[in-house]
Order: sequence, then C-alpha cells, then structure tokens
Amino acid sequence: MSDFEAADRAAVLVEALPYIQRFRDAVVVVKYGGNAMSDEATTRRLAEDIVLMRAVGLRPVLVHGGGPQIGEFTERLGMTPEFRDGLRVTDAETLEVARMVLVGKVNRDLVAALNVHGPVAVGVAGEDAGLIAAEPRDPSLGFVGDVSEVNPSVLHSLLSEELIPVVSTIGADAEGQAYNINADAVAGALAAAIGATKLVYLTDVPGLLDDVEDPTSLIARIGVADVEAMVSRGAIAGGMIPKIAACVDAVRAGVGSVHILDGRRAHALLLELFTDAGVGTMIAYDRGATDAL
Amino acid sequence: MSDFEAADRAAVLVEALPYIQRFRDAVVVVKYGGNAMSDEATTRRLAEDIVLMRAVGLRPVLVHGGGPQIGEFTERLGMTPEFRDGLRVTDAETLEVARMVLVGKVNRDLVAALNVHGPVAVGVAGEDAGLIAAEPRDPSLGFVGDVSEVNPSVLHSLLSEELIPVVSTIGADAEGQAYNINADAVAGALAAAIGATKLVYLTDVPGLLDDVEDPTSLIARIGVADVEAMVSRGAIAGGMIPKIAACVDAVRAGVGSVHILDGRRAHALLLELFTDAGVGTMIAYDRGATDAL
Amino acid sequence: MSDFEAADRAAVLVEALPYIQRFRDAVVVVKYGGNAMSDEATTRRLAEDIVLMRAVGLRPVLVHGGGPQIGEFTERLGMTPEFRDGLRVTDAETLEVARMVLVGKVNRDLVAALNVHGPVAVGVAGEDAGLIAAEPRDPSLGFVGDVSEVNPSVLHSLLSEELIPVVSTIGADAEGQAYNINADAVAGALAAAIGATKLVYLTDVPGLLDDVEDPTSLIARIGVADVEAMVSRGAIAGGMIPKIAACVDAVRAGVGSVHILDGRRAHALLLELFTDAGVGTMIAYDRGATDAL
Amino acid sequence: MSDFEAADRAAVLVEALPYIQRFRDAVVVVKYGGNAMSDEATTRRLAEDIVLMRAVGLRPVLVHGGGPQIGEFTERLGMTPEFRDGLRVTDAETLEVARMVLVGKVNRDLVAALNVHGPVAVGVAGEDAGLIAAEPRDPSLGFVGDVSEVNPSVLHSLLSEELIPVVSTIGADAEGQAYNINADAVAGALAAAIGATKLVYLTDVPGLLDDVEDPTSLIARIGVADVEAMVSRGAIAGGMIPKIAACVDAVRAGVGSVHILDGRRAHALLLELFTDAGVGTMIAYDRGATDAL
Amino acid sequence: MSDFEAADRAAVLVEALPYIQRFRDAVVVVKYGGNAMSDEATTRRLAEDIVLMRAVGLRPVLVHGGGPQIGEFTERLGMTPEFRDGLRVTDAETLEVARMVLVGKVNRDLVAALNVHGPVAVGVAGEDAGLIAAEPRDPSLGFVGDVSEVNPSVLHSLLSEELIPVVSTIGADAEGQAYNINADAVAGALAAAIGATKLVYLTDVPGLLDDVEDPTSLIARIGVADVEAMVSRGAIAGGMIPKIAACVDAVRAGVGSVHILDGRRAHALLLELFTDAGVGTMIAYDRGATDAL
Amino acid sequence: MSDFEAADRAAVLVEALPYIQRFRDAVVVVKYGGNAMSDEATTRRLAEDIVLMRAVGLRPVLVHGGGPQIGEFTERLGMTPEFRDGLRVTDAETLEVARMVLVGKVNRDLVAALNVHGPVAVGVAGEDAGLIAAEPRDPSLGFVGDVSEVNPSVLHSLLSEELIPVVSTIGADAEGQAYNINADAVAGALAAAIGATKLVYLTDVPGLLDDVEDPTSLIARIGVADVEAMVSRGAIAGGMIPKIAACVDAVRAGVGSVHILDGRRAHALLLELFTDAGVGTMIAYDRGATDAL
Repeated sequence: MSDFEAADRAAVLVEALPYIQRFRDAVVVVKYGGNAMSDEATTRRLAEDIVLMRAVGLRPVLVHGGGPQIGEFTERLGMTPEFRDGLRVTDAETLEVARMVLVGKVNRDLVAALNVHGPVAVGVAGEDAGLIAAEPRDPSLGFVGDVSEVNPSVLHSLLSEELIPVVSTIGADAEGQAYNINADAVAGALAAAIGATKLVYLTDVPGLLDDVEDPTSLIARIGVADVEAMVSRGAIAGGMIPKIAACVDAVRAGVGSVHILDGRRAHALLLELFTDAGVGTMIAYDRGATDAL
Repeated sequence: MSDFEAADRAAVLVEALPYIQRFRDAVVVVKYGGNAMSDEATTRRLAEDIVLMRAVGLRPVLVHGGGPQIGEFTERLGMTPEFRDGLRVTDAETLEVARMVLVGKVNRDLVAALNVHGPVAVGVAGEDAGLIAAEPRDPSLGFVGDVSEVNPSVLHSLLSEELIPVVSTIGADAEGQAYNINADAVAGALAAAIGATKLVYLTDVPGLLDDVEDPTSLIARIGVADVEAMVSRGAIAGGMIPKIAACVDAVRAGVGSVHILDGRRAHALLLELFTDAGVGTMIAYDRGATDAL
Repeated sequence: MSDFEAADRAAVLVEALPYIQRFRDAVVVVKYGGNAMSDEATTRRLAEDIVLMRAVGLRPVLVHGGGPQIGEFTERLGMTPEFRDGLRVTDAETLEVARMVLVGKVNRDLVAALNVHGPVAVGVAGEDAGLIAAEPRDPSLGFVGDVSEVNPSVLHSLLSEELIPVVSTIGADAEGQAYNINADAVAGALAAAIGATKLVYLTDVPGLLDDVEDPTSLIARIGVADVEAMVSRGAIAGGMIPKIAACVDAVRAGVGSVHILDGRRAHALLLELFTDAGVGTMIAYDRGATDAL
Repeated sequence: MSDFEAADRAAVLVEALPYIQRFRDAVVVVKYGGNAMSDEATTRRLAEDIVLMRAVGLRPVLVHGGGPQIGEFTERLGMTPEFRDGLRVTDAETLEVARMVLVGKVNRDLVAALNVHGPVAVGVAGEDAGLIAAEPRDPSLGFVGDVSEVNPSVLHSLLSEELIPVVSTIGADAEGQAYNINADAVAGALAAAIGATKLVYLTDVPGLLDDVEDPTSLIARIGVADVEAMVSRGAIAGGMIPKIAACVDAVRAGVGSVHILDGRRAHALLLELFTDAGVGTMIAYDRGATDAL
Repeated sequence: MSDFEAADRAAVLVEALPYIQRFRDAVVVVKYGGNAMSDEATTRRLAEDIVLMRAVGLRPVLVHGGGPQIGEFTERLGMTPEFRDGLRVTDAETLEVARMVLVGKVNRDLVAALNVHGPVAVGVAGEDAGLIAAEPRDPSLGFVGDVSEVNPSVLHSLLSEELIPVVSTIGADAEGQAYNINADAVAGALAAAIGATKLVYLTDVPGLLDDVEDPTSLIARIGVADVEAMVSRGAIAGGMIPKIAACVDAVRAGVGSVHILDGRRAHALLLELFTDAGVGTMIAYDRGATDAL
Repeated sequence: MSDFEAADRAAVLVEALPYIQRFRDAVVVVKYGGNAMSDEATTRRLAEDIVLMRAVGLRPVLVHGGGPQIGEFTERLGMTPEFRDGLRVTDAETLEVARMVLVGKVNRDLVAALNVHGPVAVGVAGEDAGLIAAEPRDPSLGFVGDVSEVNPSVLHSLLSEELIPVVSTIGADAEGQAYNINADAVAGALAAAIGATKLVYLTDVPGLLDDVEDPTSLIARIGVADVEAMVSRGAIAGGMIPKIAACVDAVRAGVGSVHILDGRRAHALLLELFTDAGVGTMIAYDRGATDAL
C-alpha cells in the first residue's frame, strides 16, 4: 500500500480503536423500522454491521417493527382495516395476524439475514419469559398495548452467551392476552431496562436538522433540554414527535446516548459508533457530555 | 384426613419421591402433536404438568407440531395443496405460511399457556442460533427438510436459566433457506443431541398394543429389539411407523427411554414419570433395564 | 392402572409437587424422643421418611433424646437415681453414663437405621467443633446444663455434603466439662441457629387439642399468640409446657413453623410436609401465615 | 536473649521451617493407643501437639484404641470375658459395651482434650457416612471385624473445614451390623484411603531397635524390604508383628512414611516431624528416600 | 463527513474489525531493536501503537535490545571493547555495565514512554522469577549466553492483569550468574514459550525482498520452507541470517506467524495487524495458511 | 538426640508454631539499607531468611536503598556531587546514574541472591504500573522526590503468585519524569498502602535504646506516643529521626507493628518474628498491644 494510503488507513484505525475499547461489552439497542426493511440490500448491510459490532465485543439487541408488512397481509386476507383517531383498531383477528407476521415472518427474516454469518441470532417475542408486560392503551383500540413492565432476564441470558436477540414487539398481560406495541416505545423501554449504553434508531431521515428546510443543518450532538426546546418551538413535528419522546425518556432513564441515523446509508451504524464525527444526531443528557460509556 | 386416606396418600408419596430424586435435573423432551392441541383444556392441563415437572427440578423441552393449523390457514388464503406420494409439496409460499403459523401462532399459544404460571417459557425456532440445520429431503417436495445437524447450545443456555424452551420445527440451511421438518423426527434428534434422559410422545393412542385389536393389551415396557420385531411382523403399521423409528433411533443414540402416551388423558405425563406402573409404553434399550436415568 | 386410581394418584401428586418445590434445600430439624424409639418398626419408618425427605432435596437434621435408655443403664450398673424437685441429679458418674448411652448407643442405633439406605448419616455430639456451648442450670443438679450458645458450622458443613446429622444433646463449657441438656430445648436452639425452615417434634400425642377431652378437636394451625393464650388459660399442661415454650421460642427466633405430630403414626412426617391438610398441629408466627418457607 | 541462645534458636528454626513448608496441607494420621491414654498429662500434651500441627497447616486425623477401657467397663458390669486363641470373643452384648466405651467415652475424652484449644475436633465412628465397611474376621469370634472398604468422604469434608477428626474404630456391614476392629489396622487403612503423607503410631517403645537388647540401637530410617527382613529373621516379635504389617501395608499402598514413636515422650510428634534427626523410627519405601511428601 | 470519505472510512473499518475480533486475547511479542530507539518520535509512536493494541484486547509483550546504548556507556567509562571472531567479549565488568544499561536505562525509558498513557507497563528482566535460564555460549566470549529454558509464569501473571511486560534480555544460570543474550533469540524463545499468536520484529528494513536490489519486490507472505530456500540460495545474507533463523524456529515451535516490519514507518504495527495487505513480510508455516490465530 | 536437647528444641518449636500460624499470609515489608549490603554474607543470610519466611506462608516485600553504591558510581564517572543544605542535588544526569545503579545493579544483585533458592523474586521499580507516583521535594534539589500516591496493584499481583517483589525506590510523575525517593519513606508508604502486617527496618543499630550511652538498655516494645515523647526529649537524634517518623506514620496508617533490628546480626529477622522475646525494638500503636496481626 502507498505511504499516503497507509497514513489514511492508520488515521482511521488510530481514531477507531479507542472507541472499540470504550464500547467493549456495551449493550447497544438498535431499532430497525418496517419501512427500511423493504430494501433487501439495506437489510443485508445492516446484518453485516450488527455482526461486526458483535465481533469486536459490543452486545447488540435488534428491535424491529413491521407495520407495512402487517398491512400487506391483512389486505391479502381480505380484512378491512378500521381506524379511530388515526390509529388502527386491533381486534382479536388483527392481533393474531399481526403476531404471525411480526413473530413468524419479519423476525424470522432478520434472524436468517444475521445467521448467514454464523449461529448468532435468536428471535424473541415480548411474551417470552415475561420480557414485556403489556397493558391496553385504550379499550376502543382493542389489543393495542403499552409497556407496563420489562423483565429483561432472557435478554441478559442470551447476551451473556454472545447471542444477538431480535425482538418482536408483542407483549402480554398477566392472563396471557397478547398486545401489539409500538416498536419505538419498546426499544426505549428495553434500552433503559437492560442498562444499554446506546440506543440507535435507524430511520429514513439523516437525523435532527436545525433548519428543517436545510438538509446541511444536521445537528451532530444535542442535549435533552435542547431537544425539548426544539419540540416546544415546533422545530420537530409530525411522526417524529413520539420517537423523540422515546429518545428523551431513554436518556433520562439512564441510557448513555440515543442516536438517530439514516438507516439506508451504507454502514451508518459503524461510522456513527467508531468515528469522531459520526453521521447522524446523538442525543445525550448534556450536549457537552463525553461520549457515552 | 382419615387413617385410610392417609395411608393411601403416603403410599403414593413413598412411591413417587424416589423418582423425583432420580429425575432431578433430567432433561425431558415432550413432543406435543398438532392434533391434540385443538382441545384447549388438554393444552391447559399439559401446561400444568410441564410447569409441575419443572417445579420439582426436571428440565422439560416442549416440541410441537401443527399440521392441522397450517392446513386451516392455507385454506383460508385460498391456496390449493398439492401432494406427491402422499406428502404435501411445500413451495416458497407454503413454507412462508407454515413458518408463520408454527412460529407466529402455535408456538405463541403454547408459550402463553405456560406463562400463565409465571415467566417460564420461551419460544424457539430451529433457525435460532443454528439450532436445527436442515437439508432438503427431495427436490420435488420443495422445502420439506430433514435434520442434518443439531446445535443445542441455545437450549442448554435456556435450560440453565430454568426456562422451558418451546420449539417450532423450522430449520435452515447454511444460506439461511428455511425448511419445514417433521416434528416427531426433530423431537428425537433434539433429545439425542442434548442428552435427554427421556423423550415423551403425547399422542392420541394409549401406547403400543400387543394385539392391535385388544385395547387392554397395552405394553408397559419393551426393548428396542422387540419393537423392531413388532414392526417386522407388521404389528405396528401406518402413521405409527415413522414415529416408532424416531423412538428407536433416539434410544440407540443414548436417550434413556422413550415413552408413548395418550396425551388426552388427564395428567398422563405426571403419572408416567412418577408412578411404578405408568400409563403408557416405555421403550428402553432393553426391556429389563432399570428405569432411565 | 384404572382411570379412577389414576385420577387419585394424580391428585396427590399435583398437591405434593409444589410443596416439594417450595421446600427444596429447606433445613428441617426433627426431634425424636427417647420414648418413641423403643418400637423398632417406628424407628425404621422414621428412617425411611427422613431418607425420602433428603431424596427430594430437603435437608433434615435429627435430634434425639434418650431418658429411658439412660435410666435402664444406670439401673443395670446399680446406681441409685437421686431427684431434687422432680429433676434427676446428674453427678459426674451419671453424666459419664448418660454420655455413653446417648452418644455411644442411642445415636449409633439411629445412624445405623439411616445408613441401611446408604452412607447418609453422621452422628454428632454437642461437644463436636463447639456445636453446643453449655452452662450449668443449677449447681445442686450437678451436670444438668442449658444451651448458652450454638456454633452450627459443623452442621452446615455436613448439610452441604448432603449428609444427615444425628445430634446427641451433650454440650460442653469452655473448660471442656460436659453437660446433659434437654433434647426439646436443644432442638429449638439448633433450629433457630441454623436458620431452619421447619422444626418437627415427633411425640406420642396427635398435636394440640382444642379440648383436651376431645381427640377429634385437633388444631391444624395456630399462631404463637394463641398458643400462649392456651397456656395461660390452662389448656396446655404438664410435660407439654416446656416443649410448647421451645416451640414458641423457635418461631420467635425465626424458624418458619414448628410442627407437633404423633411420631408413632406411619409416615406422619411425609404427610405433614407434603399434603395440604397435614396430620398434626403447625405453629407459625401467625395462624393465617402462608406455610413456612 | 544472649547471642549464644539466639544462634541455637535460629538453628532450630532454620531446620524446622522447610519441614513446615513441605508438610503444609499434608494429612497425617496419628494412632494413639488405649494404653498411653491412662496418663492424663500425656493426653494433654498430645492434644497440644496435634493442635500445633494443625496451626501450621498440617491436617491431622486422630485414630484411637481403647482395649483397657473396654475391659474395665465389662468387668464393672460383671461380664466374664471369653478368649479363643488369645483373642477376645465379642458377642452382641460385648460389642454394645465396646461401642459405648469407644464412641461414648474414649472418643469424647479426646475430643474434649483437643477442644480446650478451640472448637477444632469432631468425633467420628466408622459407621458414620459409611466411613469403614466391616466384615467378620471369624464367626467364632463374634463381632470382631476387618476393614473391607474405606469411604473417606466424611473425613475429607471435615479436613477441608480445618477440623480434626477423632476416629473410633467401630465399622458396620451393609445391613448396619456393627463390628469392633483393631485400631492399628484401621489407622493404616484410613491413611492409605485418604492419601495421607504420614502415619504415626504413638506406642510405648522408642521405635525399632537393631538389637532388641540394646536400647541405644534405635533405627532412625528403614525401608520396607529391610523391615520385612527383620521380621523374617525374628528381630521383630510378639505384639509388634501385626503393627509392623500395618506399617508395611500402608507404605506399599502409597502412604509416604510411617513413624513409630514413644508416645509418652514429651512432644515426640513435633520433634519427629520438624527436626532432621527425629526421635523414633521412620519406615519409607526405601531407606534412602527423601522424607515423605 | 462526505459520502466519499464515509465510504473509505467504512471500508477500513469493515476490513479491520474481523482482525480485531480474531486477535482478541492474542499474545503478540514485539521485538524493538536498539538501533530504532535512538529516534524519540519513533519510540513515542511505537508506545502509542502498543497501547492501542492492548486497548482492543491484544496482549503485547515488548522485548528490547540495546547494543548501541551499551557501547556508548562503556566508551564513556573508558572501557576498551574486545572482539573475538566479530563478537564482543563480555567480561564481568562489561556484563555489569550492560545489565545497568539494559535494565536500568533502556527498559526504564520504554516503560516510561508506555506509562504516559496510564499505569500499563512493567519492566522485567530475564532473571526475574527464573524467566530466562541462560547458559554460556563459548567460554572465550565470557558472559555471552544462550537461552537454555524459559519459565514464562511471571509473564502470564502480568498479562492476566492486562499489564504490558517490557523485557530486558539478561538471563541467569542456576547459581545466579547473569548473562547477556541476543534479543532476537530471546524474543523467539519467549514467543514460543508463552504460546504467542504473533511475533513481530521491528527492524530498519521493509521486510524480505525477493530481489535485494529491488526495493519494490517486498514479499508479503512466505512459508518457512521458502524462507529456508532463500537462505540456501544466498538471497538472505549477513546480519539478517540469525534473525531469520529465530523467525523460522519460532514458527516451527508453534508461533502462528512472524512479521518483519520497518519499525521506523509510522504505525507499521497497526497496519500490519489490521489490514489485509499489511506493510511488511509475514512468515507462516505455509504461505497459503490463513492468517495466524 | 539427647532428652535435654530434645526438650530445648521442642520448647523453641512450641513457642514458634503459634507465630507461624498467626502470620500466615501476612505481608511483611522489609527495608534493607545500602550500607548493610556491602557485606555479601549478610545479604546471603538475609536472602535465606526472606525465603524461609515465604516458605512458611508469610509474604515478604523487600525494599532497598543504595546511596553508597550510587556515590561510588558517580565518582567513577568523574561526576562532582553537589550538596545543598546537606542534601545531594540530583540533576538529570545524576538521576539517570542513580536509576541505573538502583534498578540495574543493586536490585539485580538482591534478586539474584534470592533466586539462588528458586525462581521466587522479581525486581520492580516505582515506575512500573504506576507503583509510586512522585512529586518533587524542592526545585533546587532537582529530581529528589516524595511519594505522592501508591498504586500497589502490581505488588498484589506478584504476592498472589507467591513471588517476592524487590522494590527500587524510583518513582515517576504523570509525565513520566522519574525521581529518586528516600527508601525509608517508600517502605513506610508501601507498607501502609498494601495493608502490611509488619514493617521491618534492617539497620546497623540494635534498636531503640532507653539510654543511648547504654547498649544494654534496648527497648523491646514501645507505643507510638512514647516514641514521640523520646523524640521530643531528644533521646532520638540525627539520622534516626526521619526513620522514626516513617515508623510512626506507618503505624498510624494501620501497619500492625514496625520493627527496628540490627540487620548485621545473623537471622535477626527470624528471631524477631518467631520468638517471644525478639531481638530488636517493636513499635506498635500501644506498648501493651498484642503482637501484630
């Protein structure tokens, strides 16, 4: 290799190695949304990044959604979706289908993509070993649930065997009744409950923008108070608001930092973790805080 | 309690306690067929027995089938089943549906039935952590597979946490392609691979009959050589033959004993394990052998 | 087995298994009096129960008396017993004989009865490894002692090896002087010191009676305050009073429950431990309290 | 201290310390005969030596006899001893008395003498936890037994707690029948079974003499072949012969060295263990062998 | 960061991470020659690389030379060097000075350079805990020694505490006489004795050249047989020959691979370890062999 | 051995064994001054005592000085010592020479003397693994340092492997700058930091004298308050004052006792540790205090 190339490569390594040391054994929860999944190449690259993270000692947990996939299947079954205040009503039949799609299809596809690299991934649903206790959000919405408690012991057990849990966000109440729960919320609650160092949302936006109109105004680091100020002044809006609330809750509950990245960008996860500049937005308790440990 | 009742109760206990001691920490694989599942009360009682076994220190693993449930769902989707030599051809779409039904519905229902008693059960598919490596049986059958290798580490990990694995019999090859595998065969292969002390098939017959015509001719204990002789002379026939082959293979591979019980009989599992007489047929290497340890 | 018999047996098991789970690793101190011992069949059955308790994971400690056996031997040696206020005066020669009979005969016979079932029992005297520190009760009574301190480390060591300690109630003071101590009192003090879950007195009465005249008025459960009320109002009398005091002290010192059973009844120990109804009287801190753990 | 005294003391220490290092954790079985015990001062000094050995990390096991004490007690009970070929016939009554005296008196007195220094000693009989399995020597001798098997686990358990086992030489057969066994033989069998580094017989002779007539001809070290030659040529005779046979068997079974000392000599044990010259006779496999480890 | 830069950085990381995984916990012996040390910046960068290696889980051992530094000091003391057959004769005074310079100066300077990054390095000489047993090479050369045995326990102890041993190559014989030993030879012997995965020589040449005249003919990988063939045909010559012999010996003794790098090149160590192409020559048992583990 | 000699030897052993028990695993820091070292026989005997201490389970740490040896070498190099207020000014060159002499010569000679008895000693300097953090005493004195912090982990690591650390008293500041530190002060600070039971100064005086004029007035034991009173009234003077201050500081910081002995006296260490009378002065918190543990 040329001296010039060697110097560049050495610089990348000298920059990355201390992060690799610092994040050794750190648990990182990665939320991967149902929208991003449609592109198979993106999923394949994500699987590669997750496996590489594990290779150097981090302990990733993958939480997935699956709204589009559920919609596609209910349509195929000829079921007519019902909405109330913009939220899908989940009756018993819809719940059964949602569970089949999330646990029996989306989760399986992700496990398969990871296990091409070796027997490293295990699918888990919130019902397993009491992982996610759920409660109904609103009777009129049927079996749409909220997280009422997290019992992370099955995740600890899998992580201690260096396995990668892939989590479907179906929870259950004490009588065994299942509920479908929003994946952004589950990711935040799990991250807090297992003492994650980082929580990463792989989305279809580059991160938070200081000026929504200006794609070059990406905010690299921000503290939770400033995030809340942005929400107050309307700089964050629409579907991003509940996700941002989950971020802020997670940081306040002890997660070191939350990252919002464009999951379609190649190897965004690795670049965010192992370079000084990163490629998305990192939300920590305090903007000036040292990178999370 | 009356002296008479006390003496009877004491006799049951004096008989059962040594079995409880002997089977402490023993792994017992229980195969529960899709036919039996249709009766919810049977499933509820099975869950109770499994949880009681665990309570006194045994380590149960539940393997389930689901043929009827798959058939019901493909029919609902308007898919036309195709058969070749009496075996259902499993094309990509059928496989996807089978996987959704087994992993996303049947497995979930069993996990839920067990977890009513506490956070004790975890669903697992053969794809998880490389549990079941599969190979195609016959190209013309599509994605019908056979077990080519078992990697039981994820089961050991769950058992060491006193969790009850509930296993769906979907395996995968090295490229991540899934296959549907016969649950009787998977149960036998898993039992051998994890060093199970016992393998129990919960079926809809009382066990092996010496004279098929005579329901009172139940065989309580039999050695593998005698079982093979029964097959040779035609005393075992039809759908029982592959199940019996799995039994014999498991015993030859080191499983202490295999039991065939009528799963619809109340608490058949407990009575087979903890009484001298048992309620079904126990197949051991040698009829005279001491009960398995 | 007939369906009827099967259902009965299953019911006994379904009732017993949760107790077996709950009492796993629980230490149970059993006091066996010198009077009961005269019947060899009773001792043989007791040994069987103790060995079965150990088989399913309980950790029994057997404490024995031996008054009648001491009396028999001193008589044979032509020694004249002397009494003061109804208590036998124990001079140096009497002490030596008592020690020989308890440690060298009664203890040995119990160890032998247990070890017929395997090498499970070990005889221990209060002098061993400082187990029971004694102090004189009253100079005029000679070497009659009270427990001044318990050092249970030798019992913990034997229990951790799954051995059954059989304890003779001879203690010693700091100068090595031996004392004979009442076995009911020693059993209570040991149970408290080793953190026993249960303390069982095998006596020749069925338990506490609500109406001493009415043998059917057996009290199944009672709290310590009510026991003390019974003593106050004279419903408990005579030789039972010091035993009851030992029971109450043990419960107040942290022993989960104390049981008074008729040791002559076959398998009374097993029935008391592993059935809902029990066969004697259970004294807990509070009548309503859940069964001891 | 004067320079002269300091030099002498330093020389003793410089000589002793390497032995203390070498024998760290070494198990040393000490046989103490019933004859020596009559002198209370001797027993007190023995107890001091044993406790000091333990203090610097050796692991002593004390095996005791008690012939004179048994004889005294049977006489007191008016029993007439019967002899056959010079051996005392042990009927059931004699056995019971022997057991009471050994386990209930002699053992107790030794435990008490040791425990004056702290809670360090525990009495054990050969019946405990199957320590010594016995078989009858000759039906006409009644319950005189030989060692048929040693199960030393209870000794290992006590030694690992830094306790000093004091062993009475009553064994039992599989039916629980007790036998009285010669203590010299038991000491040898125990030493071999627990992998003792040394076996020390405290006797009333100074050791082996090259010339029985010449008390100054004490043999300091000798190999087993030479010992056998001495027996062959009649240089060892009478009661010494079975003891010598036990010595030779123990060395052949792997005990590093056997020592014969005059137990009445003050601190003979310490001097034999921790000085170059020693004070008795050391029998090793080979005279030239390095001191046992 | 620009997409272009991001892709480049991601590529370096994707390439490096599997090496970091593979070399986790691998022991790497690095030989650093006295010539290279004269440049303080080179030493500072080496220290940085060594500390980064440790940061991501490798376990480096640094072995140093110091010929020029010894020569400089003997000259300052006015000592006249004597040579025989081109080797410096090491009399007692020269040895004392060599030891002072190596252990008391060169080693100290390296420890200090490493410890600027934290308390991670510990100086060790071959005399410590018997690390390097030496024997004289040739009486006429005085105290020039060869390695006769390696006792690596002190290195294992330091490595298990995540400390970096810095080794001076002074050995000693059984009488405590010190010898000065060639550092290339010591590095090879240590690497073999501690089961190192890699041994790296930091020299002042880029590696092995296929054509000595052509600096672009660097050999990236080569097997030991081919190396020996190069020596036979004279393609390797002069001072390189003993170093190459040490390389070949180390590989044959089980070291996974030996690397020859130009130590003056910035971060040569990191580039050799964590890139596919590397920057020097890697000698393995077989050219085609997978990179060492 | 004669009875008379045997009794004397037994008495020495009976006196010494309890100390050996009490000091098992105790860390003892021994300071050996540069003056005492000139006599090779003294060093050889010290090495023997240290190795014997270790043999019976104590954990010695040897701290050495080397003033005379440094002076000798600087003179040989023609360097002119400069003094300010009676203290030697240590410029960079002097420091380098001091470090070479202490670490590369004096330390090496002590390691060699100990390792004649086996691979037991390891040389350590204060710079290793941050053992001794130093700060300058006074800019005008150059690189003369004081201890600012002790990080004893490397000593714990070596002691846990039963190795004997031999410590040179060169410390370093955070930038890696070395300093020469007074060995008496280092010994005291190390003893406190590693929780030593004892700290022994081997000097050229017999201990503290009640009357400096009267060599027979040696004080065997004294409390720290009385030592301070002696200093106040001028009974301790000159070079002894800083050493005494280090003693008092160490005791106040938790070291059990500090001993001042004449290191030239044969086996003074053993006699002080293992006899009741001792041979020097023991300083404890309180004169009446039990000997240190």
